[in-house]
Amino acid sequence: MKVITLLTDFGLKDGYAGVLKGVIWSIAPDAQIADLTHSILPQAIYEGALTLVRCVPFFPPGTVHIAVVDPGVGTSRRPIAAQIGSQFFVGPDNGLFSLLVEPARSAGELIRFFCLDQPRYWLFEISPVFHGRDIFAPVGAHLANGMALEQLGSKISDPVVIHTPQPVKTERGWEGEVIHVDHFGNLATNLTVGHIAPLDKVEIQIADVTISGLVKSFGECAVGEPAAMIDSSGWLSIAIVNGNAASTWNAGSGSKIKVNKIS
Amino acid sequence: MKVITLLTDFGLKDGYAGVLKGVIWSIAPDAQIADLTHSILPQAIYEGALTLVRCVPFFPPGTVHIAVVDPGVGTSRRPIAAQIGSQFFVGPDNGLFSLLVEPARSAGELIRFFCLDQPRYWLFEISPVFHGRDIFAPVGAHLANGMALEQLGSKISDPVVIHTPQPVKTERGWEGEVIHVDHFGNLATNLTVGHIAPLDKVEIQIADVTISGLVKSFGECAVGEPAAMIDSSGWLSIAIVNGNAASTWNAGSGSKIKVNKIS
Amino acid sequence: MKVITLLTDFGLKDGYAGVLKGVIWSIAPDAQIADLTHSILPQAIYEGALTLVRCVPFFPPGTVHIAVVDPGVGTSRRPIAAQIGSQFFVGPDNGLFSLLVEPARSAGELIRFFCLDQPRYWLFEISPVFHGRDIFAPVGAHLANGMALEQLGSKISDPVVIHTPQPVKTERGWEGEVIHVDHFGNLATNLTVGHIAPLDKVEIQIADVTISGLVKSFGECAVGEPAAMIDSSGWLSIAIVNGNAASTWNAGSGSKIKVNKIS
Repeated sequence: MKVITLLTDFGLKDGYAGVLKGVIWSIAPDAQIADLTHSILPQAIYEGALTLVRCVPFFPPGTVHIAVVDPGVGTSRRPIAAQIGSQFFVGPDNGLFSLLVEPARSAGELIRFFCLDQPRYWLFEISPVFHGRDIFAPVGAHLANGMALEQLGSKISDPVVIHTPQPVKTERGWEGEVIHVDHFGNLATNLTVGHIAPLDKVEIQIADVTISGLVKSFGECAVGEPAAMIDSSGWLSIAIVNGNAASTWNAGSGSKIKVNKIS
Repeated sequence: MKVITLLTDFGLKDGYAGVLKGVIWSIAPDAQIADLTHSILPQAIYEGALTLVRCVPFFPPGTVHIAVVDPGVGTSRRPIAAQIGSQFFVGPDNGLFSLLVEPARSAGELIRFFCLDQPRYWLFEISPVFHGRDIFAPVGAHLANGMALEQLGSKISDPVVIHTPQPVKTERGWEGEVIHVDHFGNLATNLTVGHIAPLDKVEIQIADVTISGLVKSFGECAVGEPAAMIDSSGWLSIAIVNGNAASTWNAGSGSKIKVNKIS
Repeated sequence: MKVITLLTDFGLKDGYAGVLKGVIWSIAPDAQIADLTHSILPQAIYEGALTLVRCVPFFPPGTVHIAVVDPGVGTSRRPIAAQIGSQFFVGPDNGLFSLLVEPARSAGELIRFFCLDQPRYWLFEISPVFHGRDIFAPVGAHLANGMALEQLGSKISDPVVIHTPQPVKTERGWEGEVIHVDHFGNLATNLTVGHIAPLDKVEIQIADVTISGLVKSFGECAVGEPAAMIDSSGWLSIAIVNGNAASTWNAGSGSKIKVNKIS
C-alpha cells in the first residue's frame, strides 16, 4: 500500500492538480492518491498548515503528503521533505508542515527535515513557477516507492516555522480569535478545551453575540440558534445551527472571541 | 475489486472529504474510492437522495456508497447501513437512501437495513459532529472488506423515508415541479415519460414560457432556444440550448411545470 | 498499470463526473482514474483542448484520456477515439484533441483517429444527452483494458480541427491575445518564447499597463507588481505577483497583448 495526499492552492479548473497525478503515476504506478483540498486560498500558508493538522492523523503510517502553497516558488526558498512521526511530507520550506512538529515533539516522535538537492529525482526540465509538478510530485512518488529521505536530500535543522496566534488571558477568561472558516460558515478558533475547562461556567462572546455555555452537538439547539462547541479537531468552534455564522455575523479569520467565566 | 463512493455536503475546501479517504485506506488499503459529489447544498437531504438515484445504478455490484448529509449528527438519529439490491449503503437514518428502495422493491430485489451499534468497528474516539469520519467511513471500509452487515449492526424495519413530491392531474394534463437544477442550469422535474406518453401531443409550460413538444436531444434546436426532453435519468427536463434555464427564468426547485395536451 | 483521465464541463455538484467512474470500474476494475478537471466552462471546447495540451505530456504511455465538452451531443457529430503518440483519447469529434496533433506530427509520432461505431462496447441504453456516461466512459475503459482501436471503430482521416489564434506581426514586434485565465488570475497568451527571443529587449503591453522585460519567476518582483514570464507550459504569461491580473485589469480570453522591441 502506498498512499499519497495532495494539498494545494491550485484550484480545480486548470488541470494543475490533475497533472500532479500523471507525474506521480509515471514513477509510482500503484500509488493511491487522495486530494485533501486544492482550494486553499491563494498563498494562504497558514490555512494549508491548519488543514494538514486536521487531516494527517487519520492517514495510515507511511503516507506521503505533498503540499504546495508556495508564494516563494522560483526564489531561494528551499524545497524540502520531512518525516514527522510515521508519515512523510514534501513541499516548500515556508512553514506549511510546522504546526505538526510541536505535537510530534511532545509525543516523542521522530522529526527529520531534508533540503531537496538531488535533481536526478526531479523532472528533467524544471519550470521556475511550477515546482509542485516538477520537483514535489516526483519526490513524493519516490518516497512512496520507499526511497530514503537521505537519498533525496540533505538533512537540515532550521526549517521555517509558523505559529498559531496564542490566546491572551483576560480578567474574566481568555481572548482568542477565529483561525478558520469552514464550508458551512462555522468559525474555528485558537481556543481549546483547556481554555474552557478551568473556568467552570462560561459564556462565549463574538461581535455583539453572547452564547451561554457549550453544547456537545448541534442537535441540542434549535435551527438558527448560535452554538459553541468543541469541534472534531478539538478547537472551540462557533456555529449557527444549520446556518452560516461567518456570513451572518460578517466574521472571519482574525475575528476576536472571548471566553468569560460567569458566576 | 472494492469500490467505495462518497457523497457529502462537506464542500471541497477544508479537507473534510479528503480525510475520509485516510480512514478508509487505513482499514481497506486497496479500495478504489470515487467522489460522487461533495457539493450537495448544506443539509439538503433530498438533493443527496436524488443524486444517489442518478448514480448508483452505474456502479458495479458490491459497491459501498457512503453518504453524509447529516443535519441530525450528534442527536438520537440512528447511524445505519443497508443492502439494496447488490449494493451497500452507509450513512445517517434520515431518508438519504429511501428513494432507492421503491424501485428495488418493484424489481423484487433484496432490501435490508441495519442500525450501526457496534462501536468496535468505528474509530476509537467519536466526535459528536463528524460521524462521517468516525463512524460511516470505517463501517464503509469494513463492508468493502467483506464484513457482514449483521456483524456491524442490528436489523431494523423502520428506516426513515422521504418522498419525491407527486405530480397532480389537471384538466389538460399534469402539473409537476422542478426537483433539481444541475450545473448547466437545466431543470429536472418530477414528471416522467409516463406523464407525457398518454397525452399524445403536448406543450410544456414553465413561468410564462410555452414549449411545443419534446425533442430527443439539444441538437434538434437552435442555440438559445428553450427545449423539453427526457433527460439521462428518465425525467422530463427543461433547458435552454447552450444556455442556463434556471438563471434565465429565475427557476429552481419547486418551480411549477405544466404538461398540457394540445389538439 | 492502467491510467484513465477525465476532463469535462460537467461541474462537480450533480454526480455527472462521479458516475463515469462507476461505468469505468464496471469494465476495468483496476484502472487508476485522475480528474484533470470538470470545471471547463460549459461548451468551451477550446479551453478543454488547451487544458489537455498542458496536462497530457505528463501522463505515462498508454494513458487513456476521456474528454467530454460536447455541445453537439445527440446530433450527427461523431464519437471518436484516437491514438496520438503513445497515448489514447476518447470523446466527441469537435476538435477537443486537435491541438495535440500538430506537435505530435512535428515529432513524427503515430496519429490515428477512429469513428466509434461498435455499440456492443457501449452501455446497453444510450441517452441522447449523456454520451460521456454511455459511450465514452465504456470505450475508454475497454481501451485501458488493452482493446485495439480497430475493434472499437473505423479509421477516419478527417477529424474536426480547431486552432489557436495566431499572433500578428506589428511594426515593433507582435500582437497576440490572452488564451486562458487560470485560477490565480494569471493570463496565458498565444505568444511563446519564439516571439520574444528574436526581439532582444522587449516591453509587454496589456490594456494601459506596460511591463519592462521578462522575469524568470515571481520571486524577482515585489508583491503587487505586474510581471511577464514564460509560464510552465511555455507560453508568455502576465501576472500580478500574489494578486489577480484578470480581475485587476478586467482582462480575459481575447484581450490583446503586445510585445514591442525596445532600443
